[in-house]
Amino acid sequence: MTIQDIRDYLGRYFDAVELVGDYDGPITGPAKIETARPGQVSFIANEKYLKYLDQTNASLVIVNASLALDGFKTETAFLKVRDPYSAFVFLLQKFAGPRTVAAKGISPTAVIGEGVSIGDGASVGEHAVIGDRCSIGSNSVIGSNTVLMHDVTVGDDSVLCPNVVCYDGTKIGRRAMIHSGAVIGADGFGFAPQRDGSYVKIPQMGIVEIGDDVEIGANTTIDRATMGSTVIGNGVKIDNLVQVAHNCRIGDHTVIAGQAGISGSVTVGSHCMIGGQAGFLGHLELADRIHVAARAVITKSFPERGVAVRGYPAQPMREQLRYEAMLRGIGAMKEKIELLEGEMQQLKNQG
Amino acid sequence: MTIQDIRDYLGRYFDAVELVGDYDGPITGPAKIETARPGQVSFIANEKYLKYLDQTNASLVIVNASLALDGFKTETAFLKVRDPYSAFVFLLQKFAGPRTVAAKGISPTAVIGEGVSIGDGASVGEHAVIGDRCSIGSNSVIGSNTVLMHDVTVGDDSVLCPNVVCYDGTKIGRRAMIHSGAVIGADGFGFAPQRDGSYVKIPQMGIVEIGDDVEIGANTTIDRATMGSTVIGNGVKIDNLVQVAHNCRIGDHTVIAGQAGISGSVTVGSHCMIGGQAGFLGHLELADRIHVAARAVITKSFPERGVAVRGYPAQPMREQLRYEAMLRGIGAMKEKIELLEGEMQQLKNQG
Amino acid sequence: MTIQDIRDYLGRYFDAVELVGDYDGPITGPAKIETARPGQVSFIANEKYLKYLDQTNASLVIVNASLALDGFKTETAFLKVRDPYSAFVFLLQKFAGPRTVAAKGISPTAVIGEGVSIGDGASVGEHAVIGDRCSIGSNSVIGSNTVLMHDVTVGDDSVLCPNVVCYDGTKIGRRAMIHSGAVIGADGFGFAPQRDGSYVKIPQMGIVEIGDDVEIGANTTIDRATMGSTVIGNGVKIDNLVQVAHNCRIGDHTVIAGQAGISGSVTVGSHCMIGGQAGFLGHLELADRIHVAARAVITKSFPERGVAVRGYPAQPMREQLRYEAMLRGIGAMKEKIELLEGEMQQLKNQG
Repeated sequence: MTIQDIRDYLGRYFDAVELVGDYDGPITGPAKIETARPGQVSFIANEKYLKYLDQTNASLVIVNASLALDGFKTETAFLKVRDPYSAFVFLLQKFAGPRTVAAKGISPTAVIGEGVSIGDGASVGEHAVIGDRCSIGSNSVIGSNTVLMHDVTVGDDSVLCPNVVCYDGTKIGRRAMIHSGAVIGADGFGFAPQRDGSYVKIPQMGIVEIGDDVEIGANTTIDRATMGSTVIGNGVKIDNLVQVAHNCRIGDHTVIAGQAGISGSVTVGSHCMIGGQAGFLGHLELADRIHVAARAVITKSFPERGVAVRGYPAQPMREQLRYEAMLRGIGAMKEKIELLEGEMQQLKNQG
Repeated sequence: MTIQDIRDYLGRYFDAVELVGDYDGPITGPAKIETARPGQVSFIANEKYLKYLDQTNASLVIVNASLALDGFKTETAFLKVRDPYSAFVFLLQKFAGPRTVAAKGISPTAVIGEGVSIGDGASVGEHAVIGDRCSIGSNSVIGSNTVLMHDVTVGDDSVLCPNVVCYDGTKIGRRAMIHSGAVIGADGFGFAPQRDGSYVKIPQMGIVEIGDDVEIGANTTIDRATMGSTVIGNGVKIDNLVQVAHNCRIGDHTVIAGQAGISGSVTVGSHCMIGGQAGFLGHLELADRIHVAARAVITKSFPERGVAVRGYPAQPMREQLRYEAMLRGIGAMKEKIELLEGEMQQLKNQG
Repeated sequence: MTIQDIRDYLGRYFDAVELVGDYDGPITGPAKIETARPGQVSFIANEKYLKYLDQTNASLVIVNASLALDGFKTETAFLKVRDPYSAFVFLLQKFAGPRTVAAKGISPTAVIGEGVSIGDGASVGEHAVIGDRCSIGSNSVIGSNTVLMHDVTVGDDSVLCPNVVCYDGTKIGRRAMIHSGAVIGADGFGFAPQRDGSYVKIPQMGIVEIGDDVEIGANTTIDRATMGSTVIGNGVKIDNLVQVAHNCRIGDHTVIAGQAGISGSVTVGSHCMIGGQAGFLGHLELADRIHVAARAVITKSFPERGVAVRGYPAQPMREQLRYEAMLRGIGAMKEKIELLEGEMQQLKNQG
């Protein structure tokens, strides 16, 4: 790829892509600004990295349209765009090419159940097990050793990496990316306590429904509903080792970071952001566009959209930060009390 | 199934099952009260849901024996029992039917080691790997791609879902349900620090022993003991993504919610409840019937049975709630101090 | 094994191994001091366990060189060494013998891609899937149902337990032990927010590089870098269910306990200890030999080596403990304020 190829490619996304300087050789791949080698392309989107501008060995750097580039060394060429970060993401997509999770077609070692429908261009990897009546959409990929139990539906252009398990009845939309070790549709954790102190299992008869354009991280678990569906909306992105319990509903384009845990029957709105290791008590509702800080614990519903919350119990950011600052000031409070006690003693002595 | 069938079935569990109203058609399945359709059965066990009594489309609703039903619409029939929640759980079990985790018999793609014993009616799924000298009880099911290393014992009527791993020597009792991705018997995390700052692995020579009627959630890990056994008692229920470290002993009928972590050599009594994301330091003991709140951290032993604890460090509920309330009142304390300072200043000025 | 065999064996590690008493029979295996049976060897390294000295049924007990043994029963023999704990660990290694994760050679049910190199004495278990151009070192073991995607390198003498997944390009050093369910090299969690509120995936083009002598726990996830490598140094030990996000660098001989979560682009120094359920915000740096307490949250870099930190936000141990003690004293502060208010009222009344 030449600089001109890259300029043309970025021109699809940006009105203006200005070239400063030049470099004749091929651009071989992307790299971080601090480790780029000659021939590579990098980017600077954050002022912190401007110091690398005259140190980098990159042959091409994507920078902000407003950046003044006078005096920088001539071996490096620059492309100036409105949003260099997004431009670089688009470039990464161009360089990345498709990952081969499984070879095209149905591996001879895969086991395919009865009444299975597999779309054109789909791949089923080695030792994958596809249960009866499953449906796999066109161009979708089922990784090696992945198990779909019966009646699982996977839409077009989705990728299930190796060693994923989808329990019976799971529905997955289009363009999903499900990473290894994820378990979709295991039983919700429901047991009815008995008088003798033992528990009777509450049958978990529902399913999991996953929308389009969803990414689910490695070893994440999403439990089936007791009745009906646990629902993961369109465009939802879930990181690794996240627990989504039975009967939850996660709204469209919500993002959930690693090791967060969503208890049963929680409804999260759309465009929310849930931080890492956050937790939820059960049966709560979050409105749209709520930000939950890392490690927060949601103990009540937040019906108002757009709120940022933090702490345990989580409360709106401003109150929580004020509260935390007061806690941090407890040493000063203690000193003031001691001072007051001394003064009081003095007054009493005088009195 | 007719209403009379359901009434007869519940009559096995309850002395009195009173029918109010009638519905002639078949009952096709269970549903939540707010989403039930004609032909479905639902229940109300909680006053919050009474508002649905005259809105629901369910053809049959299980309600509390004491509920007055005058004036409700005649299209819906009611069965009155002492405990409608448990009644509905029993009904769910009736409707659920058995899940097909693997077809009866030994799949031709499974690999069975030497000296393996497999009971009558047992199933071994596709590509499962059963190590030498394993024993699988009658009617038990080993899911596809599940691996039993050598010398693993599984009792009768147990189900291991796909992609479970049991390390060598693991013993699992009867009627177990082990969900996908669970890893039973991996090495405990034990390393002896050396003078040069490196670590020498402490061989983990013990096993994991799991009692009868245990359920273990997806992607949960239970480590083998260094010597002897990590023990999971009868009737224990463990949710997803839980860590039970080496040498732990979990008492009968204890329940552990998602993402909780039990450190090494912890002994938990019977009938305890451990909340989600709770944590434990190592080498501690909990008496029977202790409740650990979600996100609590147990930093010392609790030898007295029946205590509820909360917080980090966890302390008995009442003290912890009082402590938390005092913390929440820090703003008021600060104001009082400022008021006192003002008054003191005034007194001093007067003095 | 006789006592003399054990004495000779420990003589390789310790200058002085003194025998007190004697026992003629064979030593059949190791056991905990409180449960040892005749014929077994145990140890006492901690004063708390000295009470078992005259109760144990062990035939041999490893004790500290300085321990006075007059008056203990003659059926038990003792070996006195400088470090009985390490001595016992070495003994455990002698008794443990090698675990059979997979039989020697390549299982006929394994699927081996093109251009794969497999060293002498290596094992590939049943249904394992080895992608194109992978390299497996001498005497290494790939467990059943484990998947190596393309271009994965595993050094000599490493063990990957069953159901591990290594994504394409993963590099693993020598003498690694990777437990079941671990997922190495899944995509980092990176998405660029778009103006319409949806997200575009940032291609994760890097890899994971794991050094020598690393142990990785069950169901732990280590994500590939966006560009370049996520690096796990030599001798690192990681427990179960840990999340190491993209672009992290973990220094040599650092230990990470269960359920800890390291956010993206965090650099942890060498010889650090990270407690269970600890968390990190992204893009931070820890110097060498830092101890992070269990459940702590690291919110800023700690550039000074050797610091122990605790709390959320984590701060140096001493400050944090002082802060926590002050919080615990809030009840006393409240009482003092009330007392002052009473005295103030009295003064005002007098005034």
